[in-house]
Amino acid sequence: MNGALSIGVAGLGTVGGGVLRLLSDNAALIEARAGRKIAVTAVSARDRGRDRGVSLAGMRWHDDPRVLAEDPNVDVVVELIGGADGPARGLVERAIAAGKPVVTANKALLAVHGAALAARAEAGGVALAFEAAVAGGIPVIKTLREGLAANRILSIAGILNGTCNYILTRMREEGKDFAEILADAQRLGYAEADPSFDIDGIDAAHKLAILAALAFGRPVAFEAVHIEGIRGISALDIGFAGELGYRIKLLGLARASAGGISARVHPCLVPAAAPLARVDGVYNAVVIEGDFVGRVMLEGRGAGAGPTASAVVADLIDLARGRTTPVWGAAAGALSDAPSVPISAHAGCYYLRLMVVDRPGVIADVTAVLRDLGVSLESMLQRGRSPAEAVPVVLVTHETREDAMRAAVARITALDAVLEPPTVLRIELPG
Amino acid sequence: MNGALSIGVAGLGTVGGGVLRLLSDNAALIEARAGRKIAVTAVSARDRGRDRGVSLAGMRWHDDPRVLAEDPNVDVVVELIGGADGPARGLVERAIAAGKPVVTANKALLAVHGAALAARAEAGGVALAFEAAVAGGIPVIKTLREGLAANRILSIAGILNGTCNYILTRMREEGKDFAEILADAQRLGYAEADPSFDIDGIDAAHKLAILAALAFGRPVAFEAVHIEGIRGISALDIGFAGELGYRIKLLGLARASAGGISARVHPCLVPAAAPLARVDGVYNAVVIEGDFVGRVMLEGRGAGAGPTASAVVADLIDLARGRTTPVWGAAAGALSDAPSVPISAHAGCYYLRLMVVDRPGVIADVTAVLRDLGVSLESMLQRGRSPAEAVPVVLVTHETREDAMRAAVARITALDAVLEPPTVLRIELPG
Repeated sequence: MNGALSIGVAGLGTVGGGVLRLLSDNAALIEARAGRKIAVTAVSARDRGRDRGVSLAGMRWHDDPRVLAEDPNVDVVVELIGGADGPARGLVERAIAAGKPVVTANKALLAVHGAALAARAEAGGVALAFEAAVAGGIPVIKTLREGLAANRILSIAGILNGTCNYILTRMREEGKDFAEILADAQRLGYAEADPSFDIDGIDAAHKLAILAALAFGRPVAFEAVHIEGIRGISALDIGFAGELGYRIKLLGLARASAGGISARVHPCLVPAAAPLARVDGVYNAVVIEGDFVGRVMLEGRGAGAGPTASAVVADLIDLARGRTTPVWGAAAGALSDAPSVPISAHAGCYYLRLMVVDRPGVIADVTAVLRDLGVSLESMLQRGRSPAEAVPVVLVTHETREDAMRAAVARITALDAVLEPPTVLRIELPG
Repeated sequence: MNGALSIGVAGLGTVGGGVLRLLSDNAALIEARAGRKIAVTAVSARDRGRDRGVSLAGMRWHDDPRVLAEDPNVDVVVELIGGADGPARGLVERAIAAGKPVVTANKALLAVHGAALAARAEAGGVALAFEAAVAGGIPVIKTLREGLAANRILSIAGILNGTCNYILTRMREEGKDFAEILADAQRLGYAEADPSFDIDGIDAAHKLAILAALAFGRPVAFEAVHIEGIRGISALDIGFAGELGYRIKLLGLARASAGGISARVHPCLVPAAAPLARVDGVYNAVVIEGDFVGRVMLEGRGAGAGPTASAVVADLIDLARGRTTPVWGAAAGALSDAPSVPISAHAGCYYLRLMVVDRPGVIADVTAVLRDLGVSLESMLQRGRSPAEAVPVVLVTHETREDAMRAAVARITALDAVLEPPTVLRIELPG
């Protein structure tokens, strides 16, 4: 137990550089907390010549990450390449086959191949740790899998993508539209050149799939997550939401009910006073509700070299101390087989914003459709008059089933006086 | 590893009853997450006849908790008696001497005798776990000791006593004075019949001492915590604070600086927009700042049977899985010997509220004292006029050293026109 733990790091981008810097800057403190030295002895990356601002002196270089996995002088493999397939997956599979614990920040890999990887890890008695895969530096994996392990988890709600939260926060604060803020976020480095992974909700859905698996003790099921992104959110809707006492957030939401597990990522209206509504900018936050603990909220930076390195090295310290946990919180045989609940079975309140021709009778037509489909209205808002022109109308429903809402929206969209497909947003009361 | 873990529980009050209920209600889930059954086989409490709403069938009864510690069929001892000395301490010492892991919710015991107990536990290679001792169900011990273990912790700030936060929240919402809300809180069960432990800050200081030891990796030092309670807070000050954009909270604050570790519990003014300012009622919250992770905040219920039981059983699951950590995060030999910084060396901004005779020249006298001691004023507030009567005057200083402030307050108190000792509150910007 007192020999140094020898680490091989594959992938030396922002996070990899951060891990090397953290292990070097805080070496004495980490040794005290880990009970032994943690030393990077081998690395692998695409470009050997690139200056990463950290010294690679004394570390073996492997062009092929799969060779790093089999380096006999590496005790633990850290995978920071990213991507659900390709070299990252190959590396992790090789490391597990070689009996080496793996630490990864790769949410896509875990969300898509997590069940198969967990089976391999369990068969080989090898640890697979991934605190850095969800919500950056916030120790939410440890909290769900260990800290709240005594609880039946009832629900999870989280702001899991910093790019989306940053964009929505700036849209609200500046009253500007999505495209303009996205372009500025790209210029400032808060959004990728190809932003679809973030703004279409895929990244948040990967993270939610992981959290839901841990929370409800069942194999990870990314394909069962209902996903909508934030491209359709306009400054107009953010303004109306504010007027109604809400903020628009992209949330990941998972809930256990008698019918099974629901998991969905979509923009929604959250009461302005709710704890999650007040989490702004690049911050992430997760609200977990357990049957004994009640509501617990964790908030912090969800990305970046420092926070992500903090999570990777926490996993290394756990391994150095011999602290391990089954990948999904329990052995495969002890996991639940609860079914997934489709989004069509969702029930909740809805915000519906139409652009209609401002003429008598339009509201009567719209509300007749809602009545016919059993959708009950809580409130209606029409600001400004402009006869025979397009004006926005906002409707808020009482609790309604998703399938009824969809049928109503289809009929409303077909009305002559309705000029474009309505904006439909779910209203949530997380935590 | 697959045999049942046999638990002895000493103390069957609210928390003890909660632990028994949780282990029974969630038995299947706990077995899956722990990898083995966790069964209470022995109990000890004062009154055998009392109805606790949970069945004690099949559990051995020990009148003397120390005998429970030596029960050969008990693998792990859970101490829920409470109190820094007496039977709780005797039980924990006996259990450690008998080589049995201990799980406790006892913050007083840990804060006062934690260094000696850690030495015994380390010498005996025995685990001593205490997630439930701080902030109830919020996994803050695990977060500091494991989740953020890669970080040099810079500061901690927390709302650590639900009773005080409940009283201060109601005082603000209802505009009522301390004594009235305290009496009502006692009637409703939110405050003890003898409330001094909570309202004088002792309970929060126990918890802060534990958090500071973990955060800064040094032996626990309760005697070095500066403590002030909330008895002196008036509705008048809460009102003025609100007018200035602040809320009054009882915070535990610990910080590492070049000179050493400062730790203090006192009521203070927090900007209304700060995350901690918005934590109301019986909720607890802790903001931790680490050098790599940045700011992380945890929020949840700080007391009560359910949340505390959640923390106790999380510790039991860790033990069942073989996950252990040195008591103060590192072996005794690897702990820091950083000195404690006395409150007299504190520097910060202050809120000062005087009751003065409303006559010309009084403010000039007060500000002359401040000038003479080098205390610079940021703002001054005097509401209402009432010549020759008592009126409140509020002063807010720029950053000032505590000792200069104390000297100034002594001189101001001695002025003829100052009618009662001033209220002095520190202004904090946590997180």
